[in-house]
Amino acid sequence: MVDTPIIESTKNPRVKAAVKLRKAKNRTETGRTIVEGYREIGRAFESGWNFIELYYCPALYLATDEDRLVEKIVQSGVPAFPCSEDAFRKMSYRDTPDGMMALSPLVGKKLGELDLPENPLVLIAEDLEKPGNLGTILRTADATGVDAVIACDHKTDLSNPNVIRASIGTLFFIPVAEATTAETLQWLADRGIQSLAAVPGADREYTEVDMRGGTAIVVGAEDEGLSEHWKNNATRRVGIPMLGKNDSLNVSTAAAILLYEAVRQRRQAAKP
Amino acid sequence: MVDTPIIESTKNPRVKAAVKLRKAKNRTETGRTIVEGYREIGRAFESGWNFIELYYCPALYLATDEDRLVEKIVQSGVPAFPCSEDAFRKMSYRDTPDGMMALSPLVGKKLGELDLPENPLVLIAEDLEKPGNLGTILRTADATGVDAVIACDHKTDLSNPNVIRASIGTLFFIPVAEATTAETLQWLADRGIQSLAAVPGADREYTEVDMRGGTAIVVGAEDEGLSEHWKNNATRRVGIPMLGKNDSLNVSTAAAILLYEAVRQRRQAAKP
Repeated sequence: MVDTPIIESTKNPRVKAAVKLRKAKNRTETGRTIVEGYREIGRAFESGWNFIELYYCPALYLATDEDRLVEKIVQSGVPAFPCSEDAFRKMSYRDTPDGMMALSPLVGKKLGELDLPENPLVLIAEDLEKPGNLGTILRTADATGVDAVIACDHKTDLSNPNVIRASIGTLFFIPVAEATTAETLQWLADRGIQSLAAVPGADREYTEVDMRGGTAIVVGAEDEGLSEHWKNNATRRVGIPMLGKNDSLNVSTAAAILLYEAVRQRRQAAKP
Repeated sequence: MVDTPIIESTKNPRVKAAVKLRKAKNRTETGRTIVEGYREIGRAFESGWNFIELYYCPALYLATDEDRLVEKIVQSGVPAFPCSEDAFRKMSYRDTPDGMMALSPLVGKKLGELDLPENPLVLIAEDLEKPGNLGTILRTADATGVDAVIACDHKTDLSNPNVIRASIGTLFFIPVAEATTAETLQWLADRGIQSLAAVPGADREYTEVDMRGGTAIVVGAEDEGLSEHWKNNATRRVGIPMLGKNDSLNVSTAAAILLYEAVRQRRQAAKP
């Protein structure tokens, strides 16, 4: 396809650089991350995402269409490097790599760069610890047509390869930003967006709150819940009924319940 | 506390037997599984669950109350064995074991053993592949006061230690059963319970269906969706609006959205 040198050795500098990006610190310092997987790379490319370099290993392909995707990405001007299976496996974040990986700029805008419609629906995730939960929330955010996802005071950065993976690439379909809680509260206030903090035992249930106007749903870490900062400064604290013996839901479950209630209210209001 | 022999060696027969229970086949053959973790064991014990044996390793305790829980379980007549750290780690399913583990009968009843109230809410999970998803669904089932969870044609058995873990022990709070799809359809028909199959692109949205009467929510494997058997024989196929670019939700997310809609409708109907 294109005449580029093959990355053969697991000691190749590009392999070493990719492995280093497993650490959040190195991602922040270099401003780069790894996007792995045919589906994830395809979705990013489809959304107009600019990769820095592409790595591929035909011996590991699982689907039938990888060649075409590589070709399209190469034609868009991204340098592409074929890899030996050893080199690719060394770089890979997965147990079963599918032969597609890309070096990418970090994901996530500044708050000021977000472009919102009227009555936006926003999802704010504070300090989530598990990349899988943040990824699942991004998938639900895509499904509910959320206008922006903001990761606050992040223990898990949006550019974590496991977040990208758990989102199965939907991350690239949604405007996402990273900011502090203080910045985010100010940004919401400036735009007149109400914030609904999901809190166990809140005296108002989520179904009793009008979510048709500009609304930000705020969810926090599963073990410790939302910080005092959010609990005290959100427009409202809202609860989800807990009818069993356990007192908490998975955080991505809680986010989905609140987002789909907003969708239900908005669609009902739009009915003739 | 109690004068029992210490399990010192990683080659102790009890250690070997516990390790074998990682395989579903060995769980089925022996009728036994492992419940690991202070929280999980505590919840099972609280719900009246009968363990076969208890293994504990004080050097690994993370909380402060393990001694008391061990004592209570011993007083209930369960033989308990202190373990060396090596032996315990060998048996453990976790990266960070917390020093509490129990040998347990398998979890799950027969359909005929389930005892339902009027207008029951049931959750049916067909052929889920990821233990984490089934565990998260069990947690949501507890939170929504579901009257029974049925695992159909299970690729993942309810007694899988990773299901128990992801449910953080809520599994023991809910009536759960395993059955084939054919048995389950008959069981629903006999009791006049409507079944709502969550299917992408169904022509009726989940919010348009009355869930106040006896209702079973049916969700299937994420990759392949529900089987034709369920798609064709459920009372209704219901869809969840997908407003973004991706065409599916995480299966535990989908289950939560449907279950909480049932809760919303039932609570609204119960209001004076």
